[in-house]
Amino acid sequence: MRYSPLIDQLIESLRCLPGVGPRSAQRMAFHLLQRERDGGRRLAGAIRDAVDQVGQCRQCRVLTEEPVCGLCSSDKRDRGLLCIVEGPADVFALEQATGYRGLYFVLMGRLSPLDGVGPEALGLDLLEERLAGGEVQEVILATSPTVEGEATSHYIAELAHEHGVRTTRIAHGVPMGGELEYVDSGTLSHAFAGRRDYD
Amino acid sequence: MRYSPLIDQLIESLRCLPGVGPRSAQRMAFHLLQRERDGGRRLAGAIRDAVDQVGQCRQCRVLTEEPVCGLCSSDKRDRGLLCIVEGPADVFALEQATGYRGLYFVLMGRLSPLDGVGPEALGLDLLEERLAGGEVQEVILATSPTVEGEATSHYIAELAHEHGVRTTRIAHGVPMGGELEYVDSGTLSHAFAGRRDYD
Ligand SMILES: [Zn+2]
Ligand SMILES: [Zn+2]
Repeated sequence: MRYSPLIDQLIESLRCLPGVGPRSAQRMAFHLLQRERDGGRRLAGAIRDAVDQVGQCRQCRVLTEEPVCGLCSSDKRDRGLLCIVEGPADVFALEQATGYRGLYFVLMGRLSPLDGVGPEALGLDLLEERLAGGEVQEVILATSPTVEGEATSHYIAELAHEHGVRTTRIAHGVPMGGELEYVDSGTLSHAFAGRRDYD
Repeated sequence: MRYSPLIDQLIESLRCLPGVGPRSAQRMAFHLLQRERDGGRRLAGAIRDAVDQVGQCRQCRVLTEEPVCGLCSSDKRDRGLLCIVEGPADVFALEQATGYRGLYFVLMGRLSPLDGVGPEALGLDLLEERLAGGEVQEVILATSPTVEGEATSHYIAELAHEHGVRTTRIAHGVPMGGELEYVDSGTLSHAFAGRRDYD
């Protein structure tokens, strides 16, 4: 059995959202139609506006509808520090958690030659121009601790080295408050190998 | 920290969907913008079309953009049987699970005087007209086994009685394949009190 064509189409379309299977799509569709028509109209407009108008910041590649994002155009940030992250959510997480006052460069992915994601797709030509410009004093690598994230960081570290820019990497290890027995073995072996003098 | 206005508005609007909190709204927004712009456009259109055009079937009150839904206008259904359910998803569940060939009447809620949901809001005037029409031979009550669902069924049974229409109620009890120890106590006590001769 099918619902009416417009309801079927709504349920089907909701499935493009991550984590939404057939049952939750159905629940969402009926919720919108039974209780949230105004919210639904607002949502439709917000999706349309964002999808049509949001592009990437010319300087850091973060998602924004402005030519240059709020962080890059701020005069309160230290332009000598450039933190490299994989996605816009990472910028948000770092801004929430740290007192970092430098700028970001958002790769929007990580190097993955098998999937056809090379240096250009990550804007590394733009990054290189920036490093050549001489303003950046330190590149802080904050890509994910995965094989592809590490390869991406390695590639960027080489670029920075060519331009004589200092490179640092955020620390990885046992999470604060984490109990050893619940930490995955990769993290644990990395933390063990990276042990420091205790003082 | 905020994202750009259009991204903030998208994240906020996604929260009108049931079960979507701040983190999943954020994940959905970035997913749409980074990987699903076409899906997002289709979703926006599907929401707008459904919210603007879907109303209720004139006969059974189910959600549909047609004046009369596919089930009510079918000539293959037994018009003497009328199953009363609370919502459109119940129609779907019964169609999937049973071989029922009669029609439905969808309350779109249940009696709840405290929330201002009275008989008119559930279309019970429409139901009464239908019972008075003489075509319906049996009303099958399939409201939820909750206090409000039971009260609603009780009210409808009275209506049916006044019009001399036979009324049945779908069985409630221990689910098939359910182990007793995992069944909630309300269901268990109901099942125990409703025990039948074994033959
Ligand atoms: Zn920027
Ligand atoms: Zn109908």
